[in-house]
Amino acid sequence: MRPKSWGWISMSERLEGKRVRIKAKGKIFEGIVMPSFTGNFVLKLDNGYNVGFKEYELLEVLEVEPFEPHLPELVKREGLPDVKIISTGGTIASKVDYRTGAVTSQFTAEEIASEVPELTEICNVDAELLYNILSENMKPENWIELARHVYKALKDHEGVIITHGTDTMHFSAAALSFMLSTPKPVVFVGAQRSSDRPSSDAAMNLLCAAKAATEDIGEVVVCMHGSTSDDYCLVHRGVKVRKNHTSRRDAFQSVNAKPIGRIDYPSLSVEWLSWRYRRGERELKLTDRLERKVVLIKFFPGLSSDILEYYHSKGYRGFVIEGTGLGHVSTDWIDTLRRVCEDSVVVMTSQCLWGRVCDRVYDTGRDILRAGVIEGEDMLPEVALIKLMWLLGNYSIEEAKEMVKKSVAGEIEPTTQY
Amino acid sequence: MRPKSWGWISMSERLEGKRVRIKAKGKIFEGIVMPSFTGNFVLKLDNGYNVGFKEYELLEVLEVEPFEPHLPELVKREGLPDVKIISTGGTIASKVDYRTGAVTSQFTAEEIASEVPELTEICNVDAELLYNILSENMKPENWIELARHVYKALKDHEGVIITHGTDTMHFSAAALSFMLSTPKPVVFVGAQRSSDRPSSDAAMNLLCAAKAATEDIGEVVVCMHGSTSDDYCLVHRGVKVRKNHTSRRDAFQSVNAKPIGRIDYPSLSVEWLSWRYRRGERELKLTDRLERKVVLIKFFPGLSSDILEYYHSKGYRGFVIEGTGLGHVSTDWIDTLRRVCEDSVVVMTSQCLWGRVCDRVYDTGRDILRAGVIEGEDMLPEVALIKLMWLLGNYSIEEAKEMVKKSVAGEIEPTTQY
Ligand SMILES: N[C@@H](CC(=O)O)C(=O)O
Ligand SMILES: N[C@@H](CC(=O)O)C(=O)O
Repeated sequence: MRPKSWGWISMSERLEGKRVRIKAKGKIFEGIVMPSFTGNFVLKLDNGYNVGFKEYELLEVLEVEPFEPHLPELVKREGLPDVKIISTGGTIASKVDYRTGAVTSQFTAEEIASEVPELTEICNVDAELLYNILSENMKPENWIELARHVYKALKDHEGVIITHGTDTMHFSAAALSFMLSTPKPVVFVGAQRSSDRPSSDAAMNLLCAAKAATEDIGEVVVCMHGSTSDDYCLVHRGVKVRKNHTSRRDAFQSVNAKPIGRIDYPSLSVEWLSWRYRRGERELKLTDRLERKVVLIKFFPGLSSDILEYYHSKGYRGFVIEGTGLGHVSTDWIDTLRRVCEDSVVVMTSQCLWGRVCDRVYDTGRDILRAGVIEGEDMLPEVALIKLMWLLGNYSIEEAKEMVKKSVAGEIEPTTQY
Repeated sequence: MRPKSWGWISMSERLEGKRVRIKAKGKIFEGIVMPSFTGNFVLKLDNGYNVGFKEYELLEVLEVEPFEPHLPELVKREGLPDVKIISTGGTIASKVDYRTGAVTSQFTAEEIASEVPELTEICNVDAELLYNILSENMKPENWIELARHVYKALKDHEGVIITHGTDTMHFSAAALSFMLSTPKPVVFVGAQRSSDRPSSDAAMNLLCAAKAATEDIGEVVVCMHGSTSDDYCLVHRGVKVRKNHTSRRDAFQSVNAKPIGRIDYPSLSVEWLSWRYRRGERELKLTDRLERKVVLIKFFPGLSSDILEYYHSKGYRGFVIEGTGLGHVSTDWIDTLRRVCEDSVVVMTSQCLWGRVCDRVYDTGRDILRAGVIEGEDMLPEVALIKLMWLLGNYSIEEAKEMVKKSVAGEIEPTTQY
């Protein structure tokens, strides 16, 4: 059996001894959840028989006796920094939740501490459940609300942790990087494997994130596994990070930048790998408007530039193009680009992802620049998109054109890093 | 001075001693091109003064005395395999071309052999100039024409090399992988640095490509630098490769697959790293229709599903979505997806690029499957796009739905490779 002290409790454990009604294999079953040593979900039916299900066979938990954890109250420890954990959902918050929508809403500091008790040795945990959604459902509206909650929490906490689904965690981290100017750490953390699986990265990531949240970091970062072993996490700048694997625990990588730091596990010792905004250098500030009418378009051979007109006619004035190579599209896009550039900001990024855009090398690139397109330097397309949403939300088109070329939150490195 | 035996001749060398009119620094200059030892372009003006320009200052070569290489005729060597080089343009073919459009059209076997003489020790070179375009200007029409030329060339050559711009080389390689069933090697090769730069990878890549074109490979591959040193090239399966850096010479990487082989330089010894279709196993076959109305859409938080309707109303019946994580879009896309799936093929891939799509884990994913979307397995989004163009060009919607899930040209690996 998986050691209890280790991490989050699996669904089976969580419901152990409780009477439930579940949907599985196309039928409804009712019974008492039995202790399981195999990771399966075992139900003692009323007729006395046991029936076991694999995780994936369990479609839905329809009803469960009210769950009351009766956890001991947390005592604030002297000398430890106060850290707020804001939960937004995703795998890291998922227990039974994505089947019932019910259990995870019990997201109290006591609950987190009972699941990852080592947390209480790092900081005094304060918790807030903001959302319980899969991050593919995050919207710019959510980023704004989240930024406001983080802003508030930073006023009376030494750091803030945001637990978040991994799918769009880098989008949210980029959004908060632009919206918040912070002297204290804001740490996004997620999990690639849910906490009811032995290979879950949830607890270790959370512990490393807590460590990062008590460190001398004045910016928005992402803290996730740095390798496929449980040996260290990496702290990535929120505007330089990307999810580069669908399932690996070390899916998050800094692109065109070194990670800011590395946190070893289980020692939690920190090694700095790159520059960071230090504490106290920036005052806490919130600039939280976002323009929704900004679009990211990935170019491919044969794609018609009509797509630019389509969005332009709908009132879009911000365009990020994911071009090829050094930042190209085909020559038959130039006329449309020129027209759109007249009253819009058009930023060129590269679908290569790594490297820097440079449109002064080839004819196609020079034509693109002459049309009025702005080189996105070494910005990730996703980051350029959010930067443009933020710029157009808070500044004029002309200001946005100037600012998009300059680093606002560390999103442009002066020289290209590999 | 850069050793002559080494690679392509720089623009300055190429025009040495000739009378030219050029545009540079906003003015027109006329004079005789002088030998240069610095890589600069030096002109002796009629008044006797020399004036030098950096490569990038030279905007256009307006006129040049007719260029006649007078190269020795190539003699066919007994025992060496015949290889056809088809040139399509890009940096690897660029000399003065992208400024004048003139000089590169002198693309004869003699010229290539005089520039990379080591080639004649590997094979008997036969050459054909098909295009002289930057690959960001390639279109599905070009892939069809190219496939037909390769098909023809394969009938009386042991292998075919296609020199190609790097921007969209992986798109073209994927296209030919589906269109051609070949018992012989079809090798795409390009250069990240133009041949007039000392760090050019053009010659070494071409030599390794020639080696690959005489090997026991029955498929379409890409041969490019494997490291930033000049020590080896990698041979990538045409449907598993991607340009992952804007400028590094080792920008091409196999994604979700091992490269097929490694060719050391300068020894040109080959090491096989993965499975390949062997010669003779497949008969030469051309299936060269492509449906143009297929689109690749990259999802991001806040993107409206209206974009699906837009393309659907224009008659598109093939959609590849670059979703988040394991292959997700937000829940508010489901209704539109369901409608579109009724008469279209919709394939889900991941913008993570690495890893495999699996929509059975989360609610959002299961909803996507129920709507009729097909999981793209470990296919790159770009490859799924081209596969769908090819399937819808040659098969019915129903057949395409079945075939898209199965590996046609090695584009789906049975298990995920890292
Ligand atoms: N689809 C989930 C995946 C995760 O949490 O890791 C989400 O992003 O919310
Ligand atoms: N833009 C060029 C780059 C190259 O050839 O490497 C092309 O793709 O044609």
